[in-house]
Amino acid sequence: MTHAQEMLRTYPNEVGLDAERLARAIDLLVDCANTCTQCADACLSEDRMAELARCIRLNLDCADICLAASRVVSRQTEYDVEVTRPLVEACLAACRSCGDECESHGAHMEHCRICAEQCRACERTCRELLDEMAR
Amino acid sequence: MTHAQEMLRTYPNEVGLDAERLARAIDLLVDCANTCTQCADACLSEDRMAELARCIRLNLDCADICLAASRVVSRQTEYDVEVTRPLVEACLAACRSCGDECESHGAHMEHCRICAEQCRACERTCRELLDEMAR
Amino acid sequence: MTHAQEMLRTYPNEVGLDAERLARAIDLLVDCANTCTQCADACLSEDRMAELARCIRLNLDCADICLAASRVVSRQTEYDVEVTRPLVEACLAACRSCGDECESHGAHMEHCRICAEQCRACERTCRELLDEMAR
Amino acid sequence: MTHAQEMLRTYPNEVGLDAERLARAIDLLVDCANTCTQCADACLSEDRMAELARCIRLNLDCADICLAASRVVSRQTEYDVEVTRPLVEACLAACRSCGDECESHGAHMEHCRICAEQCRACERTCRELLDEMAR
Repeated sequence: MTHAQEMLRTYPNEVGLDAERLARAIDLLVDCANTCTQCADACLSEDRMAELARCIRLNLDCADICLAASRVVSRQTEYDVEVTRPLVEACLAACRSCGDECESHGAHMEHCRICAEQCRACERTCRELLDEMAR
Repeated sequence: MTHAQEMLRTYPNEVGLDAERLARAIDLLVDCANTCTQCADACLSEDRMAELARCIRLNLDCADICLAASRVVSRQTEYDVEVTRPLVEACLAACRSCGDECESHGAHMEHCRICAEQCRACERTCRELLDEMAR
Repeated sequence: MTHAQEMLRTYPNEVGLDAERLARAIDLLVDCANTCTQCADACLSEDRMAELARCIRLNLDCADICLAASRVVSRQTEYDVEVTRPLVEACLAACRSCGDECESHGAHMEHCRICAEQCRACERTCRELLDEMAR
Repeated sequence: MTHAQEMLRTYPNEVGLDAERLARAIDLLVDCANTCTQCADACLSEDRMAELARCIRLNLDCADICLAASRVVSRQTEYDVEVTRPLVEACLAACRSCGDECESHGAHMEHCRICAEQCRACERTCRELLDEMAR
């Protein structure tokens, strides 16, 4: 059991979304945020760094947006779908752009391959959250 | 001239949006993020704090989302409208929810009145950015 | 193997600290940051929330400082001990204050008990990093 | 009057530090954080970007640490000097390292010159806060 799951199980009120799916989403968002931070830094150390400006930029964006999303969906008190939905949509878009860019370098750079996988997983979890919110 | 303006004037490439409008947006996003942080904290010190859970929660969300938006729009290298637009939409939604909530307490709590004004100004600047991106 | 470990193994240059210890530290910092975000929110939903202002406040601080520390230690390019050391010291102090506070509520609130454990683990990992930096 | 000042004047309890100095510090921290975000991005667009890895890295660190510091000192509820002091020390160190690095490029790149000035101003405000906390 992850800490996100444990924390949701001990939350004193009702959780606005399916708790298992939400815990998985929180873990993926937090993990993707940090993987993108590490990928931006790894790109900064590559010899061909000058070709990686777009990758670095999208990594930084994706880290910031996944972080904001992880915090907002972690908050269950007075859950407000009008704030949560558009932010998860923005997060999905950031993961898609960053995943596409990292994937295009994945054959040459392992850190980009791993980061692309994380972005894809995070994009899927965002879509699952959005499907649930649309119900 | 604010530092955001100065930094945009010395940016070595072309800026993807109108530079004056963008600098104003950056300043408002950064300022709104911090005002929301201060408002959440002021609410935590109110006697009637227990009635302010929704206000605190939306202040924290709005602070995190305005911060992410301020960072993403501050980045002009390899500007990607597919990432920027949905995030500015999410930011507009957060400012609206937080502004509505703070406004409802504004008659009794000065910090909420000031915060509501900041959220309204930030909502307007988000709308201006979105109008420009739609062109 | 966690993603932090995988990312450090594929980092294109030398890592300034012991890579296994560093990966563990990154994972703990990131996890503690989010647990604190969740604990602040759980406190906001407690009936006795009005008595939890100090806990909420320290949770928010600890989340922000652990996040900053996780990002800074995740960056290995041009590692600067003069920046990293004082930030890890600040993080240790935040984890200690937040851990003490959460522990004092742990008998009555499970989320505080879990959060206190996370803060203790994060405090230890900060101390290990500082020991290594002092060598 | 800035919004940080207005918010401190309407804060419902006593402020733990001199309110005018604190408001100035919040404004400088928030401003420095964003200037560093903009400077990192401007560096990413420079032709000689490959020589700027250290500058970009320190800009990112300084942005994250100034942000965390701005949030922690903005919170006055249950003010804890044991958390605040080491964080302001870390922030001072980050501003010094980033200021030194940006200054070394300031003759050739205006964004680094402006950013160095901001880091120096933020370093001074951190020192003032620390002096006050030591009393």
